[in-house]
Amino acid sequence: MTKRVFKFSASGCDGDREMKNLLGGKGANLAEMCKIGLPVPPGFTITTESCVHYYKNNNTWPEELEGQIREAIAWLEKDTGKKFGDAENPLLVSVRSGARASMPGMMDTILNLGLNDKVVEGIAKKTNNRRFAMDSYRRFIKMFGDVVLGIKGEKGHENPFEEILHSVKKKAKKEFDNELNDKELEEIVNASKEVVLKKTGKPFPDNAWDQLKLSTNAVFSSWMNERAIEYRRIYKIPEDWGTAVNIQTMVFGNMGDDCGTGVAFTRDAATGENVFYGEFLMNAQGEDVVAGIRTPNKIIELKNIMPKAYDQLMEIREKLEQHYRDMQDIEFTIENNKLFMLQCRNGKRTGLAAIRIALDLLDEGKIDEKTVMSKIEADQVTFLLRPIFNEDAKKVAKKEKRDIAKGLAAGPGAAAGRVCFFSDEVDAMKKKYGKAVLVRNETSPEDIKGMEAAEGVLTARGGMTSHAALVARQRGKTCVVGCKELEIDYKTRIMTVNGHTVKEGDPISIDGSTGEVYLGEMPTSPSEVMEVLNGTKKASESSTFKRFSRLMEIADKFRRLDIRTNADAPGEAEIAIAFGAKGIGLCRTEHMFFGGERIWAMREMILAHTETDRRKALDKLLPFQREDFAGIFKAMKGYPVTIRTLDPPLHEFLPQTEKDQKELAQRAGITLAQVHARVEELHESNPMLGHRGCRLGITYPEITEMQARAIFEAACDVKKAGIEVKPEVMIPLVTCLPEFKNQEAVVRRVAEEVFKAKGMRVDYMVGTMIEIPRAAVTADEIAQGAEFFSFGTNDLTQTGFGISRDDYGKFIKDYMEKGVMKVDPFVSIDPGIQRLMKYAVEGGKATRPNIKLGICGEQGGDPDSIRFCHDVGLNYVSCSPYRVPIARVAAAQAALGVGSEK
Amino acid sequence: MTKRVFKFSASGCDGDREMKNLLGGKGANLAEMCKIGLPVPPGFTITTESCVHYYKNNNTWPEELEGQIREAIAWLEKDTGKKFGDAENPLLVSVRSGARASMPGMMDTILNLGLNDKVVEGIAKKTNNRRFAMDSYRRFIKMFGDVVLGIKGEKGHENPFEEILHSVKKKAKKEFDNELNDKELEEIVNASKEVVLKKTGKPFPDNAWDQLKLSTNAVFSSWMNERAIEYRRIYKIPEDWGTAVNIQTMVFGNMGDDCGTGVAFTRDAATGENVFYGEFLMNAQGEDVVAGIRTPNKIIELKNIMPKAYDQLMEIREKLEQHYRDMQDIEFTIENNKLFMLQCRNGKRTGLAAIRIALDLLDEGKIDEKTVMSKIEADQVTFLLRPIFNEDAKKVAKKEKRDIAKGLAAGPGAAAGRVCFFSDEVDAMKKKYGKAVLVRNETSPEDIKGMEAAEGVLTARGGMTSHAALVARQRGKTCVVGCKELEIDYKTRIMTVNGHTVKEGDPISIDGSTGEVYLGEMPTSPSEVMEVLNGTKKASESSTFKRFSRLMEIADKFRRLDIRTNADAPGEAEIAIAFGAKGIGLCRTEHMFFGGERIWAMREMILAHTETDRRKALDKLLPFQREDFAGIFKAMKGYPVTIRTLDPPLHEFLPQTEKDQKELAQRAGITLAQVHARVEELHESNPMLGHRGCRLGITYPEITEMQARAIFEAACDVKKAGIEVKPEVMIPLVTCLPEFKNQEAVVRRVAEEVFKAKGMRVDYMVGTMIEIPRAAVTADEIAQGAEFFSFGTNDLTQTGFGISRDDYGKFIKDYMEKGVMKVDPFVSIDPGIQRLMKYAVEGGKATRPNIKLGICGEQGGDPDSIRFCHDVGLNYVSCSPYRVPIARVAAAQAALGVGSEK
Repeated sequence: MTKRVFKFSASGCDGDREMKNLLGGKGANLAEMCKIGLPVPPGFTITTESCVHYYKNNNTWPEELEGQIREAIAWLEKDTGKKFGDAENPLLVSVRSGARASMPGMMDTILNLGLNDKVVEGIAKKTNNRRFAMDSYRRFIKMFGDVVLGIKGEKGHENPFEEILHSVKKKAKKEFDNELNDKELEEIVNASKEVVLKKTGKPFPDNAWDQLKLSTNAVFSSWMNERAIEYRRIYKIPEDWGTAVNIQTMVFGNMGDDCGTGVAFTRDAATGENVFYGEFLMNAQGEDVVAGIRTPNKIIELKNIMPKAYDQLMEIREKLEQHYRDMQDIEFTIENNKLFMLQCRNGKRTGLAAIRIALDLLDEGKIDEKTVMSKIEADQVTFLLRPIFNEDAKKVAKKEKRDIAKGLAAGPGAAAGRVCFFSDEVDAMKKKYGKAVLVRNETSPEDIKGMEAAEGVLTARGGMTSHAALVARQRGKTCVVGCKELEIDYKTRIMTVNGHTVKEGDPISIDGSTGEVYLGEMPTSPSEVMEVLNGTKKASESSTFKRFSRLMEIADKFRRLDIRTNADAPGEAEIAIAFGAKGIGLCRTEHMFFGGERIWAMREMILAHTETDRRKALDKLLPFQREDFAGIFKAMKGYPVTIRTLDPPLHEFLPQTEKDQKELAQRAGITLAQVHARVEELHESNPMLGHRGCRLGITYPEITEMQARAIFEAACDVKKAGIEVKPEVMIPLVTCLPEFKNQEAVVRRVAEEVFKAKGMRVDYMVGTMIEIPRAAVTADEIAQGAEFFSFGTNDLTQTGFGISRDDYGKFIKDYMEKGVMKVDPFVSIDPGIQRLMKYAVEGGKATRPNIKLGICGEQGGDPDSIRFCHDVGLNYVSCSPYRVPIARVAAAQAALGVGSEK
Repeated sequence: MTKRVFKFSASGCDGDREMKNLLGGKGANLAEMCKIGLPVPPGFTITTESCVHYYKNNNTWPEELEGQIREAIAWLEKDTGKKFGDAENPLLVSVRSGARASMPGMMDTILNLGLNDKVVEGIAKKTNNRRFAMDSYRRFIKMFGDVVLGIKGEKGHENPFEEILHSVKKKAKKEFDNELNDKELEEIVNASKEVVLKKTGKPFPDNAWDQLKLSTNAVFSSWMNERAIEYRRIYKIPEDWGTAVNIQTMVFGNMGDDCGTGVAFTRDAATGENVFYGEFLMNAQGEDVVAGIRTPNKIIELKNIMPKAYDQLMEIREKLEQHYRDMQDIEFTIENNKLFMLQCRNGKRTGLAAIRIALDLLDEGKIDEKTVMSKIEADQVTFLLRPIFNEDAKKVAKKEKRDIAKGLAAGPGAAAGRVCFFSDEVDAMKKKYGKAVLVRNETSPEDIKGMEAAEGVLTARGGMTSHAALVARQRGKTCVVGCKELEIDYKTRIMTVNGHTVKEGDPISIDGSTGEVYLGEMPTSPSEVMEVLNGTKKASESSTFKRFSRLMEIADKFRRLDIRTNADAPGEAEIAIAFGAKGIGLCRTEHMFFGGERIWAMREMILAHTETDRRKALDKLLPFQREDFAGIFKAMKGYPVTIRTLDPPLHEFLPQTEKDQKELAQRAGITLAQVHARVEELHESNPMLGHRGCRLGITYPEITEMQARAIFEAACDVKKAGIEVKPEVMIPLVTCLPEFKNQEAVVRRVAEEVFKAKGMRVDYMVGTMIEIPRAAVTADEIAQGAEFFSFGTNDLTQTGFGISRDDYGKFIKDYMEKGVMKVDPFVSIDPGIQRLMKYAVEGGKATRPNIKLGICGEQGGDPDSIRFCHDVGLNYVSCSPYRVPIARVAAAQAALGVGSEK
């Protein structure tokens, strides 16, 4: 018989922390904490496999599950000495979800299960605390009503149970929940039960077993609720993992003033500083803290209020860090001065914190360098490179009194945009104004999509561990929370802030590093790391920069992939070198044709009807190209530079406005009608699949010739000046060997001509993009000519999928929403496209075992794609300059086979 | 030492007919004819490998070649008792090309080699025939001048040697070459030598050895001349085969009136009738007959003139057919009443003739059914299906006296179009008027491209074996030759025909089955086979139809592939069934949306902004679709029908003219601006890669739903009427399994709904197009859902190559000319695309071993592609109705591993 239920208590555990896949993160860690002797209320975990069974079998339990649960409840009654559903000595339990990967707040929780009209009086009698009993009961009804019975508030309205609470508080003239007395709470209980009867047509279920079964199913079902699906989509969590269900003896933080509940991080989750960091509420139950309903107290205050519990918590902090060798996020409850641990897990943290914590743990001897690499996500390096508000702009704003409020700095960075009050309207606001800041009283998991789309998030309520803060930090969103001065009226879509009126659509700026809120959109300036690299700050004065450098050094010890950059100008190349790029993987020569006089020469070339005229125009372009290449060769100081010959269709260079067309006619000495005719002639039905890439070079070999001449003349000149050069000439859009050979012949002929004229030689290679499926599957043939391949994954994705990046906006949303696609293939290399690449790698190596292999598509900077590139055996990845540091870390992680926990 | 030279003579041969690859077709057959005792002048063959060596080694001979040639010449001197270069008793030779595949007239020939001023007098003395000696000499200088020294005429001018001939003839007032006397010929010799001196700056080479070496190199070089390259491109002959060189003792047909030369076919090459068919010229050398300079005599006349030679020829005819078991094309020369064979090869023939000859040989017991399949090219079946002029139109034309001339019926069929006098202008003429007929005095290999592009070819000179006739027959071109009434003035671009003036661009019609030429473009009517199938002629009255049926029966015995058709309407389906299609492989539902009211309902659907409005419009379309499908199911009588759901992007259905847009606005009750807006909204940068195929069905499932409903309601209705139905629903443009699953779910749900409502079930399948590279390489996954694959090779070629068929006209010409592409991948499946298909077949079968596999792209009717489809293991090919018979033959040939000789 399959074991479906795993018990945990001080007297023994069925599971441990290695069993996350089966017990979920929460269940595995509850067992682990029991094992290392921490005070954990006893309970049991229903396996994730049971959830998977539930979905695969039309929402039914495995046969053996009910029996095992009944057996576990009996064991729990024995362990606690209480009885489930009993009015005299009742066992109350919590029912909580817990998946393999942490999905904070995504799924549902029910506390105080086992209560009914009789049991509540039994509790009241037993604890001699009727207020507490009623408080627990009204919470239970609310959670059960919400989660199990699906009773929600409508848009613009609060949850009906919250409404009852507010109206009773108002009537009683009490500000906080914990000020209500037992009668008032009983009034809430009765009103809540009426809501249930009215909304469901049935009375609130009073049988403890029914409550437990329904709640377990509700937790199973929450795995497929919309926000959980959305969360999994974002974090790429497979649907077939399922969630575990944890059923645990209740301990109560709401039993009186010697009670409380809290959450804490063993280190600062925002900065990574090694300080105990958390919040708690006296006389409250768990969800109160996280939900941000009351603004909680700082953890340090617990030292005064309950010094013993505080000391115990500090001991546990150290024990957990020693045991897990990572920063922990914990939940605890204090019941009558007694501390209980309800959860521990590796704490979510900002990129800044992740990097600092990993490096500190290394210094503290808790982890080694390899583990440092496993403790961060490559993308988190971005946090070190994020912009901040321009200090001068801030000064001006302050002078103009546009600094209207200050909240908690929950997500570092700087964000500016238009105010938007509803998450599902952020996209529309962005469409209208470009950037949006989401402003809410508080956020809930329903808001994930809107938060993702917004530049930043500002909330009126909640603390550093509120939902908004957690999500923002993890996603690298700039975020300010608990900004109490905000008074938001969702109906009129206006908020007032210290006397200022801010309407929907007004510009606003928030500083996630200081908590400041400004009127107007403020300009930003670069990060500290950027400042050091720019020379505006000394490296020695920036601990951020020092950590950045150290992290890069460690990454470089492990990675096997080289990192190059895509750069078209000397300036870009220099930034990339500063970030550690060891070459240029893609230099797009066409970008060089746009500036100033060049574009006119280019256009003359396109208008020419004879080779002679084209050559005349190309002669004008030659010195520009040569100069550009020389600049790049110099900047790259001997690192290889991959230069792609002309790629885009010619019509992209022709003027689109009548004014420019007239100027072109005048300059070229032809009529406007002739210009129009040529524009018309160059029009294509599907330019992506048209006359571009090497197809241009084959029709007009003189273009390739000019470019080759510019490359080799520049290379000789720079080499003569004492700087090593390594040009790699790359032919785009090749589909077959003869195309490559045709262009290679032009390049090699010109190279020899230049070398002869200059009386010197330069080592160079000629290779090709692999960006067309036919090229991928005939790479064995193409490698007969090409000395290197560079995967152009943008075009390979377009042609491999038959999807135009310019047009796929029309259906990609439907695809994502309907689960047809899980990941945007233009962000992360799709598995089908990976197969094409694999064929190409195998084919290329079969023909030319030492062929050089790289990638220069956008996905070259995406950590998941980098992992694939490593696995498939590429030599390098090339990405935009700002992603070079991320790529270095991702490459190291790929080599180590590690990555941060999802 | 590699053997480079193979001798042949009555006394023994080094080679035989199996050695075509090494000796070329001509060399191998010369040896073979010697072996079977036919009178062949002795000689030797330089191998094709020597030619390949020549090209691979910078145009130099293999070391051993010269020695072997010298040795062979010495042997030949011994065999003939003559001496090479000797003035008293000179050995004269011919030097002729001969590749593995016959390339008639593509390469070069030199006759009478060994002559110079001294030798010519020796010959004159020895033969006592100075006229003959001079005639041979002037021919030699002309051929050597043309072929070896490259002296050509310019456009609009004749060859300078021809000009000399014409001016001497004019001066001497003689009509034909053979009327010239020795003095006149000597004048030509001297003038020709002057031309050589003037054009090359050197005197004509008089050393026999120099002549031989230069001529051998010229033949090697002719392998790479433009017309040979073009010919190989058309016939897909590999460049690396090279040509052999045949050096053979001269025999002379120009030695007097007991001499002559001729060419013949052992059967009628136009109709296939079992009659000896050929032409000869008295007192002439070989090229005179083929070149069409004089119109030759019919072979039957030889019986009177030289009965002994004629009888001998008849014996040889029978011997050759018995030996080769095929119709032979022979060349012979009669020297002083003695017959010599100069060549034999399998004769080129029309499709009509190929089929008739093969079936006759079968009846004569010379070959078996399998060999019948090897004796024809599948494409030749077209000849049986080609249109003829409408008899009524012909009567009218004759009444109006528009029948202006009659030539030889050299290529059956009917062609009408505008007169074009220059081959390189046919394309322009077609662009202007749609169709063109090429009209020339005679054609040469330079004209191939123009002939290919023209509807038909009309020549003033030449016989049934002239270049024009040969090429036209083989390529299935309608062709009339030797139409002497034509007087063409290339300079004024006007021809006069029996008093009529016909200008360039005037309409003309030619009947390649009767030789008639008409003014004006006449309508055509279908072939005899078509008439029988249409019921306008009885099968018993048409021997053509009987042969057609018999051929199809034989093909069906061997083929393994099923043949289906692409048909969108019941009428098309019926034709296809008559041609033997066993199902529909592609029924494009969108074509049904265009007629009458349907298009307006379709447009309403596209304009709708809500699902409700879309469903309203779709409800209007449903009855139309249902009716169409019912018609097709009935026509297909239980054969499977593959119906593809909506594929093209929606904008293709919207009106493009202002008038129609206004009507649409009015019908839909919206403003014109709203119509414009929707048109704009639907615009795509790359519609080929846009919102189309299953992407539409995923965004708008109600469209798929309506189509599925129409399919299953029609299927039930037809089945209820007692006709079996096999619908196969095909989802287009699938890239991944989830897309397929999404649409499959809609189809299966609707099917169940319909079956329930109708109280009956219909067997059906749901499958997918494989037309996107990603689908091909993940076919293993897609086959988890799809019950069948149909390769959409049009789109697979577009996306696999990254080439749009709408745009590739801009560079495909360059590609063909520069040898980058050899075959248009939209005509014949490209080898790279074949690899993608192979992956898909392997993947599909791995997951679903009995998966049904077919092809429905245009290439499904191309014999080479059908061969691949057979080899890779498809179940069927689907092609346009008129290509079904071709596909049946091609499928049989694929199964037998045979195909006609190239």
